[in-house]
Amino acid sequence: MKAIILFAHGARNPDWAQPILAIRAVMLARRPQIRVEAAFLEFIAPTLPEAIASLVADGQREITIVPMFMAQTGHTKRDLPALLDAARARHAGLTVRVATPIGEAASVVAAIADYALSAGA
Amino acid sequence: MKAIILFAHGARNPDWAQPILAIRAVMLARRPQIRVEAAFLEFIAPTLPEAIASLVADGQREITIVPMFMAQTGHTKRDLPALLDAARARHAGLTVRVATPIGEAASVVAAIADYALSAGA
Repeated sequence: MKAIILFAHGARNPDWAQPILAIRAVMLARRPQIRVEAAFLEFIAPTLPEAIASLVADGQREITIVPMFMAQTGHTKRDLPALLDAARARHAGLTVRVATPIGEAASVVAAIADYALSAGA
Repeated sequence: MKAIILFAHGARNPDWAQPILAIRAVMLARRPQIRVEAAFLEFIAPTLPEAIASLVADGQREITIVPMFMAQTGHTKRDLPALLDAARARHAGLTVRVATPIGEAASVVAAIADYALSAGA
């Protein structure tokens, strides 16, 4: 069993989570058998350590983190590796890897470009 | 003539702009005749007022701002309208409108969901 965590920044307004939860809903609609959770760096629950602990408690041992960031920043280059080091130390046998941030994925870049063109037409 | 501004947050590291510039490049490859610029709220040039002034100086009178944000935040709900009010006051005859943020566009949400599924496969 593999699991995916959509890791996003978070904001003081809890509504900020809605697009992330919408992405999760689309994923579950397409692949109902997959385990996918959202997690946030700050302000919104669950945190990444909480989300990982919850998945591990449910028997998940392979987790892919997909950063919901446009680019690599201090959050993905420093905060995220530190959180993952702590998670690996805490959960024996856990395999966790980090995917390319969404803003550096060619298919996402193309979709944003198409959307921006249509929005400006 | 219509113009599009990709309005993003910005970060201290100028590399942060790369995905936004990649989106712009895809747009120009698909529609070479369109005028599209990037602008940033902070840290990276040009600012939104600078980008608007540059487009107006080149004869653009209709500008669509596409927020490169996952969700509506204080930046899109307060900072952006204030910047646009100032731009309208400064540039007579300018029509400027704001599109839905990328994270609330269904096609972008679907592309991110597909990418996240493939990343976690």
